Amino acid sequence: MTRDEARALDREDPLRELRARFDLPDGLIYLDGNSLGALPRAAVARQQEVVTREWGTSLIRSWNDHGWIDAPARVGAKIAPLIGAGPHEVIVTDSTSVNLFKLLAAAARLSDRRVILTESGNFHTDLHIAAGVAELMGFELRVVARDAVEVAIGPDVALLLLTHVHYKSGARWDMAALTARATAAGVRTVWDLSHSAGAVPLDLNGAGAELAVGCGYKYLNGGPGAPAFLYVAEHLQESLANPLSGWMGHAEPFAFTDDYRPAPGIARFLTGTPTILGLAALESGVESFAGVSMEALWAKSVALVDLFARLAAERCPELACVTPMDPEARGSHISFAHPHAFEICQALIADGVIGDFRAPDIVRFGITPLYVGHEDVWRAVDILADILATGRWRDPRFAVRGKVT
Amino acid sequence: MTRDEARALDREDPLRELRARFDLPDGLIYLDGNSLGALPRAAVARQQEVVTREWGTSLIRSWNDHGWIDAPARVGAKIAPLIGAGPHEVIVTDSTSVNLFKLLAAAARLSDRRVILTESGNFHTDLHIAAGVAELMGFELRVVARDAVEVAIGPDVALLLLTHVHYKSGARWDMAALTARATAAGVRTVWDLSHSAGAVPLDLNGAGAELAVGCGYKYLNGGPGAPAFLYVAEHLQESLANPLSGWMGHAEPFAFTDDYRPAPGIARFLTGTPTILGLAALESGVESFAGVSMEALWAKSVALVDLFARLAAERCPELACVTPMDPEARGSHISFAHPHAFEICQALIADGVIGDFRAPDIVRFGITPLYVGHEDVWRAVDILADILATGRWRDPRFAVRGKVT
Repeated sequence: MTRDEARALDREDPLRELRARFDLPDGLIYLDGNSLGALPRAAVARQQEVVTREWGTSLIRSWNDHGWIDAPARVGAKIAPLIGAGPHEVIVTDSTSVNLFKLLAAAARLSDRRVILTESGNFHTDLHIAAGVAELMGFELRVVARDAVEVAIGPDVALLLLTHVHYKSGARWDMAALTARATAAGVRTVWDLSHSAGAVPLDLNGAGAELAVGCGYKYLNGGPGAPAFLYVAEHLQESLANPLSGWMGHAEPFAFTDDYRPAPGIARFLTGTPTILGLAALESGVESFAGVSMEALWAKSVALVDLFARLAAERCPELACVTPMDPEARGSHISFAHPHAFEICQALIADGVIGDFRAPDIVRFGITPLYVGHEDVWRAVDILADILATGRWRDPRFAVRGKVT
Repeated sequence: MTRDEARALDREDPLRELRARFDLPDGLIYLDGNSLGALPRAAVARQQEVVTREWGTSLIRSWNDHGWIDAPARVGAKIAPLIGAGPHEVIVTDSTSVNLFKLLAAAARLSDRRVILTESGNFHTDLHIAAGVAELMGFELRVVARDAVEVAIGPDVALLLLTHVHYKSGARWDMAALTARATAAGVRTVWDLSHSAGAVPLDLNGAGAELAVGCGYKYLNGGPGAPAFLYVAEHLQESLANPLSGWMGHAEPFAFTDDYRPAPGIARFLTGTPTILGLAALESGVESFAGVSMEALWAKSVALVDLFARLAAERCPELACVTPMDPEARGSHISFAHPHAFEICQALIADGVIGDFRAPDIVRFGITPLYVGHEDVWRAVDILADILATGRWRDPRFAVRGKVT
């Protein structure tokens, strides 16, 4: 395929107008929306409004007058259709890590078994948080290789913790199949949707998923450190007790009573005061999906990832693709192994192509169909091929590491 | 005192120029900075810069290039001098409630005793979070009346949880005396500084305080739902394990290892990805204290609270002041009991005086010397006296309650 052919595909792309919803620097090819989503144009004015009008002018009255108190449930309800959940099954609060702690600890208390099962190489905060829960509650955290997870779903396992789309390889679990298998074995599954929400079509209700957490600042475009979301299937909500039982999860937070009485429904999973600036930005991010179906986005993602894989296979033979080629077995990013992945990633950034490095040897490209097109993919691979062919990633400045790599 | 005399005191006030650091609506008397601090002017431009330049243009690179990754420690170090702590003893993260959970659970693990002691009528999230920790860890939460706390510091008590300045009455514990008494009994104290940080001079190090949490959106002016802070005395940091052991508290978050290894020092109390928009606003809020000593602010607070108390005693005999008159025994707000506190509060708001109601019968006025002056206090009491004398708080519209009261 030539660049002109890629450009022609963009002209025919029914989603091409969506890029205008984002404020991206001219000429930059941004393939890191799976790490930090681009800035929605609407978020700029909205953030200014929250700061100057709601905080500055209405001040404390905004809790009622500008709906601050409803923001966690309101933004949660807007995320719900993107993940196949009911509006009252999702709430926005805290970070993914903190929410994971809540759900694991809450679900652990419902079981008389004592094992939390997960996969090695899972995103490490999931492993660390699960280890923390296990230590605090006298559980064993059992970490097995990915291909051993299914057989390890045994009679002593209370909870199965899986990340739906793997942060590094992009490999995707079959949510319905795994949930069914776990449920049949008396095991409750907690899904981390950080690399799936807003990226792949999700049907939590249809898959029988009971518990999930996910990230606000990746495909949902909620801004740096955006608050995360948490899903609990309706039938389970009243059985679960939030271990981080703060006042915002109280049935009557403004009655100021000594005793804790959990709010009905999903609101019991709130803890402290909601982060209003972050919620406002996330709301703009989620609204950037307005009028677009996840299926249409997914079809474009499949085409773009396939194109990236094909072009890279032709032009960058040094790179080993670690992402499944079957679209049903992957998310919306594509990753390659190379011993000098870090330097290659820096050389790409210097040439205006932003992907990211994941230790020890992966260069990763997020494909976000809201604002990435065929020509972007074509150019990214073209530049990548050139960096590899010329070996200019060997320039010592590309070996300099910041705190965040 | 006449209004002119109050105005004359403002003219002589060495801190009078500080009000210009805040963007407050003309004519509004804002006495609720203990619930949501006013908007620092610098926060407006700063928030726009974070959104458009750092997020929009630099995108993911801002984690290194704009110091996002350092923000929790950097803003913590700026809070430290306001509370008498070393710069490496304070970090900004999560909410007050979540941080309280971390410190209580971490400190609980160091003791072989099994009681957490606190006072009834403490701010309820403190009670709820402590109850959650107790339930999860097999502790007893012992809640006693305020005047029984000191004698209840006994040999079975592991932890004492106290809010330094009471959210409702404004009564302040003697931090050094209580900490010493607890320490002598082998009891570790956790201080909640939500109504003291930025309000009263604090000397955590001098008082021998080991553990504390506090709020970012009250006197520190960090904006709605600003991230909270957490303090651990240097000598204790390496002994404590964060139960919410997320990746940001890892020694090497970007090594992506399965095993958790806590960061050295205070950084181990981080959990998930820091909320950058909230941190930026809080940084502006904390910087609004630049060049001002807490002692100077406190002297002004004492004068203003004394003035409020004196004028209210003269002109509003229906109100029962519940705040200690000894400045050393109080914080920087003044509260009054009245059976119709809610309606009185609403009538005040309608007349441009914003205080707040605390169930069941308290009207509360936050005195924030950065932006409140003598004339503000004089006018507030004048309007309050008029509302009481005319009984116009009885207008039915003042009985309408929003979700947040």
